[in-house]
Amino acid sequence: MNRKPHVAVVGATGAVGVEMIKTLERRNFQMASLTLLASARSAGKKLKFHGDEIAIKELGGNSFQGIDIALFSAGGNISKEFAPVAASAGCIVIDNSSAFRMESSVPLVIPEINAVDISMHKGIIANPNCTTAITLMALYPLHQAFHVKRIFASSYQAVSGTGAKAIEELERQVGQIVGGRPVTKEVYPHQIAFNVLPHVDSFLPSGYTKEEMKMENEGRKIMHHPAFRASVTCVRVPVYRAHSVAVSAEFAKPVTVDSARAVLSGAPGLDLVDDPEKKEYPMPLYTAERDNCQVGRIRQDCALENGLCFWVSGDQLLKGAALNAVQIAEELVK
Amino acid sequence: MNRKPHVAVVGATGAVGVEMIKTLERRNFQMASLTLLASARSAGKKLKFHGDEIAIKELGGNSFQGIDIALFSAGGNISKEFAPVAASAGCIVIDNSSAFRMESSVPLVIPEINAVDISMHKGIIANPNCTTAITLMALYPLHQAFHVKRIFASSYQAVSGTGAKAIEELERQVGQIVGGRPVTKEVYPHQIAFNVLPHVDSFLPSGYTKEEMKMENEGRKIMHHPAFRASVTCVRVPVYRAHSVAVSAEFAKPVTVDSARAVLSGAPGLDLVDDPEKKEYPMPLYTAERDNCQVGRIRQDCALENGLCFWVSGDQLLKGAALNAVQIAEELVK
Repeated sequence: MNRKPHVAVVGATGAVGVEMIKTLERRNFQMASLTLLASARSAGKKLKFHGDEIAIKELGGNSFQGIDIALFSAGGNISKEFAPVAASAGCIVIDNSSAFRMESSVPLVIPEINAVDISMHKGIIANPNCTTAITLMALYPLHQAFHVKRIFASSYQAVSGTGAKAIEELERQVGQIVGGRPVTKEVYPHQIAFNVLPHVDSFLPSGYTKEEMKMENEGRKIMHHPAFRASVTCVRVPVYRAHSVAVSAEFAKPVTVDSARAVLSGAPGLDLVDDPEKKEYPMPLYTAERDNCQVGRIRQDCALENGLCFWVSGDQLLKGAALNAVQIAEELVK
Repeated sequence: MNRKPHVAVVGATGAVGVEMIKTLERRNFQMASLTLLASARSAGKKLKFHGDEIAIKELGGNSFQGIDIALFSAGGNISKEFAPVAASAGCIVIDNSSAFRMESSVPLVIPEINAVDISMHKGIIANPNCTTAITLMALYPLHQAFHVKRIFASSYQAVSGTGAKAIEELERQVGQIVGGRPVTKEVYPHQIAFNVLPHVDSFLPSGYTKEEMKMENEGRKIMHHPAFRASVTCVRVPVYRAHSVAVSAEFAKPVTVDSARAVLSGAPGLDLVDDPEKKEYPMPLYTAERDNCQVGRIRQDCALENGLCFWVSGDQLLKGAALNAVQIAEELVK
């Protein structure tokens, strides 16, 4: 693009939408205008952007006239309905839902890994799953150096990954428990306060959840590595913000802790936080609201020949969603 | 033993000690007398047992005269000092600490798995690590059927595993956050409320923690399987009670979900809770204060040839500590 783009955020009041707006502001993304779109329920509300108040408009079929780039984060159904409408109007959609990620005509992009894929877009570019994105920020540099064959991973996922209502649910349940009142459930099928739920997204016939299989499916596409295998258990934990993942990774080439640290300490968008003796390792409380993901607990895997264990943590509203989407937009205007 | 034993609980006021006393009462363990021992700080306090009040005595060198079975849960240093003293006095020690677990002369026992080892004791019998015990309750029946080669596992460990002070710490930090006050730390090096800590027990030169290596070391001894390999990440989560573990297990023999379910549904001390469509899977909130561990989320591992993924949850104060110790005592008096 050789002029400043007109930008829209679809789902402007959601947990990710709010972060998209903040991230555009914080990174001083140069644009001609910002349009905020949401459901009729939110239309008319105003949000601040660079000191101005912008009124939210109701999303509709004509919302994308004159828009160059639209960041979507309003759920898969809204994306399925409106992303093709926006693309037909000449707008480039960066979609945070899972609706188009595995379509062969849609690039699925983490700019630090496969920015090269962006140019192949036909109007829609997909943002990856949050847990996948955070894991790949550490795994991909290791893959480049040592060629990953497969991983075994378990996630510790924050409630904000489910959205703003889930943040309220954890707060409400904690208040109910502290106050000695009965616990009510609206978002999750079971109490999340002081509990963990081995259930993120819906179940497939295989017994894995959709969320769990995103690591393998999206990982293959993003890393251009069709033989990559990933066995994952995704678990919701009573943390407000930032996901963490414990990973055992098997590589084709020999790998040592020192060689892995050397690779990871130079990786873009990633901080090495790995000094256990000083009690320094990544934790969601301290990766929340940070752009960079953090990796630590790096050790030679004791059950694999060429294996490494590591622990990665990152803000799933930022690198796992809003930041990655804005980074794709930045690539588009470069 | 052909008479009712005189029993002592060492560390009677600790999180596990309290559960040992409750478990002896609940299972109506037949004994001639119960002696409660603790540090000078707790001496004189009274605890209820079968309607009687028993005054706690200070632990000392002469505490074990006339005691037949002593359940120890007062930390490794107390066990190292007093378990040999008790054994010399003719008492059989069932020790919940890690002090003697790997000594070749000390049986390390989960009664459902290797009760046969109890008879080889020389005065001390060790109770296994809590996370290991809960995992093996599901893994061992699968091992008998399919021969386990190795596992990759991640834990979600409750604060009560650290003791009564850690329960208070989580409660206090939650109250501080809800009340908008600064968070204070006494037990854990970092805030545990609304956070997860990839740090349980101390770090080894390999980068694994001692806790993480207990799965392999204790697993080999308990299962009589010296080639067993386990790569584990142990993580503390803001849950009050009951540990959970996500496991990918590789077997020598072919295994299917149906054959695994058939094995696990008949396993002692274990409940199969595995109906994801009905949102039924093990969770710590619902395994807390239950004797049986629960296993679910059983699926063919997509990154292993003969592999299974499963999720196990269990009360680490019960099967992971007090219940297992009382079960060993029951075997002794059989």
